[in-house]
Amino acid sequence: MFENVIGAELAACVEFTAEADKLKQIFRRTMLTAKNRRENDAEHSWHLALMAAVFAKFAPQADAVRAMRMVIVHDLVEIYAGDTFAYDTEGNSSKKERELAAADRIFSILPCDIGSELRGLWEEFEECKTDDAVYAASLDRFSPLLNNHLTDGVTWVEGNVTASQVYKRMEPIKRGIPPLWPAVEEIIRNGVEKGYIREDRADA
Amino acid sequence: MFENVIGAELAACVEFTAEADKLKQIFRRTMLTAKNRRENDAEHSWHLALMAAVFAKFAPQADAVRAMRMVIVHDLVEIYAGDTFAYDTEGNSSKKERELAAADRIFSILPCDIGSELRGLWEEFEECKTDDAVYAASLDRFSPLLNNHLTDGVTWVEGNVTASQVYKRMEPIKRGIPPLWPAVEEIIRNGVEKGYIREDRADA
Repeated sequence: MFENVIGAELAACVEFTAEADKLKQIFRRTMLTAKNRRENDAEHSWHLALMAAVFAKFAPQADAVRAMRMVIVHDLVEIYAGDTFAYDTEGNSSKKERELAAADRIFSILPCDIGSELRGLWEEFEECKTDDAVYAASLDRFSPLLNNHLTDGVTWVEGNVTASQVYKRMEPIKRGIPPLWPAVEEIIRNGVEKGYIREDRADA
Repeated sequence: MFENVIGAELAACVEFTAEADKLKQIFRRTMLTAKNRRENDAEHSWHLALMAAVFAKFAPQADAVRAMRMVIVHDLVEIYAGDTFAYDTEGNSSKKERELAAADRIFSILPCDIGSELRGLWEEFEECKTDDAVYAASLDRFSPLLNNHLTDGVTWVEGNVTASQVYKRMEPIKRGIPPLWPAVEEIIRNGVEKGYIREDRADA
């Protein structure tokens, strides 16, 4: 669109903007706190970006702005690859391959320099090794944990999830936002107590 | 929540995170490109944040990262004040007052330092004077313009909007992302031609 009036590079950015609209159609398992529907990837990504600003003070080892940029792009590949539930073992075995193909497709819509910069942020998030990526991952873990806590553990119940699975999934928070860890433990304890999460003594 | 295990400050951040979930329930007029429903404020804010990264190169006068932080918080007040359609004159006359009260309420959930930092970003966005705010406003204008273009001008038709109203609304883009302006003109011309936007010679 509009190459003739704004040139190929800027037109590619507009094209990408239109394509990104599709992320609003990709639904996750997480239930909104109002309990009226599931959350989509776009609003999830916004929530993490807001959290990146809010929790920054408690993660001084991380660059909150880089983490914010990461969470903004972290789910874009799901436009083509779909959302894979965190506790779905089968879906997760093919996830990497599907998402790499999707990354080739989505980031290549953009001019080279912009596309490779954003792809780099996505790759760093996926590898989850740097302080910034671990902070971003911590937000990505804590957000659905909190919503589950506030919505009768619906996705834990549906997934027949055990405490050790949740503890494992939340692991990045220990390094990413250490002072938040006791709240994670409290939420899991409460989930087990209420019968939303199956006990398997991994938290013992 | 959780004051007893993580302290009052961090617990306030968790409380704010839960409250912010409500932004996903605030719907705008804008139709998604898939034409299946309207857009909500949370996914809209995400889209602008993504655009802040994508269009940065074409707005060298602005700090794209500050603009990104602004758009992430720019609609939070609508959790309590509701969304006001851009071309609704009556709604816009009471908007300022309603939103100020909402800002007092939402930002005060946070610890003082974090709350006043985010509120400052919101105020800067609202005043729309600095280069960063004008860049952020440009994204906030262009995004619904593009979606309208891709969805048969639905909100223009519903609002019985004239070309001069759209031109006026898009004004920040001239300063915020100058090279994008010809695409704005093209979209408005097309909207008038198709009968989505009423002609009033203001674009002559």
